[in-house]
Amino acid sequence: MGKSTKTQTIPVKTRILSENDRLAAENRAWFVKQGIFVVNLISSPGSGKTTLLVDTLNALKGKQHCAVIEGDQQTSLDANRIAETGFPVRQVNTGRACHLDASMIKNAVSELAVTGLDILFIENVGNLICPAEFDLGEHCKVVLMSVTEGEDKPLKYPVIFHLSRAVVMTKMDLIPHLRYDPLLAEKNIRKINPQAVILRTSTYTSDGLQDWLDWLVTQKSHLPL
Amino acid sequence: MGKSTKTQTIPVKTRILSENDRLAAENRAWFVKQGIFVVNLISSPGSGKTTLLVDTLNALKGKQHCAVIEGDQQTSLDANRIAETGFPVRQVNTGRACHLDASMIKNAVSELAVTGLDILFIENVGNLICPAEFDLGEHCKVVLMSVTEGEDKPLKYPVIFHLSRAVVMTKMDLIPHLRYDPLLAEKNIRKINPQAVILRTSTYTSDGLQDWLDWLVTQKSHLPL
Repeated sequence: MGKSTKTQTIPVKTRILSENDRLAAENRAWFVKQGIFVVNLISSPGSGKTTLLVDTLNALKGKQHCAVIEGDQQTSLDANRIAETGFPVRQVNTGRACHLDASMIKNAVSELAVTGLDILFIENVGNLICPAEFDLGEHCKVVLMSVTEGEDKPLKYPVIFHLSRAVVMTKMDLIPHLRYDPLLAEKNIRKINPQAVILRTSTYTSDGLQDWLDWLVTQKSHLPL
Repeated sequence: MGKSTKTQTIPVKTRILSENDRLAAENRAWFVKQGIFVVNLISSPGSGKTTLLVDTLNALKGKQHCAVIEGDQQTSLDANRIAETGFPVRQVNTGRACHLDASMIKNAVSELAVTGLDILFIENVGNLICPAEFDLGEHCKVVLMSVTEGEDKPLKYPVIFHLSRAVVMTKMDLIPHLRYDPLLAEKNIRKINPQAVILRTSTYTSDGLQDWLDWLVTQKSHLPL
């Protein structure tokens, strides 16, 4: 019975993913046409995606027109934090689902004021596994990795580290209080993704924030990608 | 098309879960018969499950016969760390899957020396969402929540916090270096699960470790649960 369940699962998953890919391609074509650079932020729960986003939006105020789609299993806590920056935001609650998909993004975008938008940030559900499987139509994925999570995460969750254009190391200010080797962490990232840009940040000290902003604006200026 | 994909997905998921529930019930009946207390440890990646387990096993040496099943998407890094304690361990690599299921546990148990075992620890894949959906046949789930992840996780990932018998707050030693309110975190846990035992721990200072050990041994002594 276990075996027959397995043989039924694969084609359904394939069909869901191919339907998602079709919608993601539609999203991407539309984003390119509008000149909107779209970043899909992925990390473990509590790695600091929302805090980095709030600081990013405050720094980009008056320079780039931004908007945010917030994914969470429950609550609109993150959307409320983003709304305080003054930029438009839509919260998507996924219920029991573990990731955003392309149709959720399509619906959320239709509710956002996107005319003249430069950058759309998508904060995915906190999860290093499932969000990696679902293309949303973004231009790139960025994975965040808090130093409190240890050095081994790229090896243990290779799919998302392999697919990401940049790895943002967060909470760097905590290193003096941890048994943590940042060089080992970077070596592990390089094993999985030699091309990834690695950015070291702390929203507590603001270290590395300018590098992250410069990277974003450079990526945006290279559209279509 | 999106709609028709959805109507096909639900019965397959239901069938997978009911098949999983059947195997989990078999596992549970077998564990009860053998007098083995089984704990399913769930958390975000990097919350400190393996470190807590290593300290737990070292403290239980000569007192309880333990074994461990380690779940990870990739690598046997965690199983290697556990093996150093001298207790038997089996690593399960889930590949692209985001959780352990009951059949994986059944297979892993068949490879472990379980005669005379007191406690079996299952360290699930680092993920606050999907592992909550899959009963493994354990006697209880325990969710870990690192203080570096912020106070809001119980509200954002309510399913696993609702299902867990205990919540282990980890890395308490880092609180002086964080903007973190432990009372707000506990209030959020209570909103989702008023009955949960809350344990405050630090593997760095060993604070709270004895409370956790006492809780485990008490739970074990109350078998069958």
